[in-house]
Amino acid sequence: MADLSQVRALTFDVFGTVVDWRSSIIREGQELGRSKGIEIDWQGFADAWRDLYQPSMEKVRNGEMPWTKLDDLHRASLERLLKEFPIEGLSEEEIDHFNRAWHRLDPWPDTVAGLTRLRRKYVLATLSNGNVALLVNMAKRAGLPWDAVLGAEPARHYKPQPEAYLMTADFLGLKPSQCMLVAAHNHDLVAASQCGYGTAFVARPTEYGPGQTRDLKAEHAFDVVAKDFLDLAHKLGC
Amino acid sequence: MADLSQVRALTFDVFGTVVDWRSSIIREGQELGRSKGIEIDWQGFADAWRDLYQPSMEKVRNGEMPWTKLDDLHRASLERLLKEFPIEGLSEEEIDHFNRAWHRLDPWPDTVAGLTRLRRKYVLATLSNGNVALLVNMAKRAGLPWDAVLGAEPARHYKPQPEAYLMTADFLGLKPSQCMLVAAHNHDLVAASQCGYGTAFVARPTEYGPGQTRDLKAEHAFDVVAKDFLDLAHKLGC
Repeated sequence: MADLSQVRALTFDVFGTVVDWRSSIIREGQELGRSKGIEIDWQGFADAWRDLYQPSMEKVRNGEMPWTKLDDLHRASLERLLKEFPIEGLSEEEIDHFNRAWHRLDPWPDTVAGLTRLRRKYVLATLSNGNVALLVNMAKRAGLPWDAVLGAEPARHYKPQPEAYLMTADFLGLKPSQCMLVAAHNHDLVAASQCGYGTAFVARPTEYGPGQTRDLKAEHAFDVVAKDFLDLAHKLGC
Repeated sequence: MADLSQVRALTFDVFGTVVDWRSSIIREGQELGRSKGIEIDWQGFADAWRDLYQPSMEKVRNGEMPWTKLDDLHRASLERLLKEFPIEGLSEEEIDHFNRAWHRLDPWPDTVAGLTRLRRKYVLATLSNGNVALLVNMAKRAGLPWDAVLGAEPARHYKPQPEAYLMTADFLGLKPSQCMLVAAHNHDLVAASQCGYGTAFVARPTEYGPGQTRDLKAEHAFDVVAKDFLDLAHKLGC
């Protein structure tokens, strides 16, 4: 277990932990559908887009592709899905706007209030596989009060590669033991812990929809387990 | 001249432009002097420390040294000056604290109010040779409302190398023509302009003290010339 009194920075997984990507992508799809007269299963589309997320990053992790930012991985996945579903008749501008739906994800109801309390005591930084522009635009729209937008792109390594965690601590001028990862995903917290980070699990039981089966609870001895960001603030004395 | 209607992000030089490094380092030196009974010319010390700034980065720029963050360059310069002045009897902890005086620089009087207005319309990012931790700690202390903390360290190139400007625009997901550099230094703005950035000169006529002779005015046809950040906000329609 980490010595929590040493922790100076809270670093956050973003997709699923800070924002509700699935409802937001469904909303964006439905908006596109209404404006273009496209009728498809947008829930299925959102899940299919997200299903291509890990495989697309894996090609970068294993060296099959050079460093590629998430916006560009999302775009390649989107082009594939536009053919598969199919969705036709979109202009380049419309495809680009839809790809940037990931810049317009909505926070969970407790997110902004929780971060605002946590920020009084800690440096708050993203530690996300999202690229900087995506995270900056998301924060600006949703009012997420980050002190620093960090993660895979500045580190040029996708989580759970250790460089993503270690370089984020280095950018913050801190030892890994002075950083804590906040995440709704067991595997992310295990990887952070192996790099020396403190760990806080916050359950997001509807991230993957009503039938979610994974990450419903903490499966390891994390330093903090909280119901939401307000509970996390309470448990960290903020 | 840049097309100002295209500009989405304002990127800021920090030392001298956003914060008054000289008065702040003098203040920190005087505090150290009082607590340790050291009587030296702290104005001269501040100027000497800053005089080593460009030569120390030049060794990284020309490849004589590998990438080294500014905190570490500041520390090497400080150790040299402690011997030269001399200043004796400081513990490792005291030296480290004094080195982090650069994390505790005070903003100019118009800085926070100006940034707050500018942020309504633009993404605000640092484009500084300061390292991320230095800039994050400075922002937290001074209340600087950055959307992103970028610059030399994420780009691994010190200004005025073009990579510093080009990679900052790339991190923001923007073309250089969609970015504007705000700086109190003619040479920085010229380098940014050569990379395709828009340019805004804000004079800081006492940055180098009462006898300042350089950068008293814009020496090139920059896109905007403003008296301070409030005047800049006015001129940019914020």
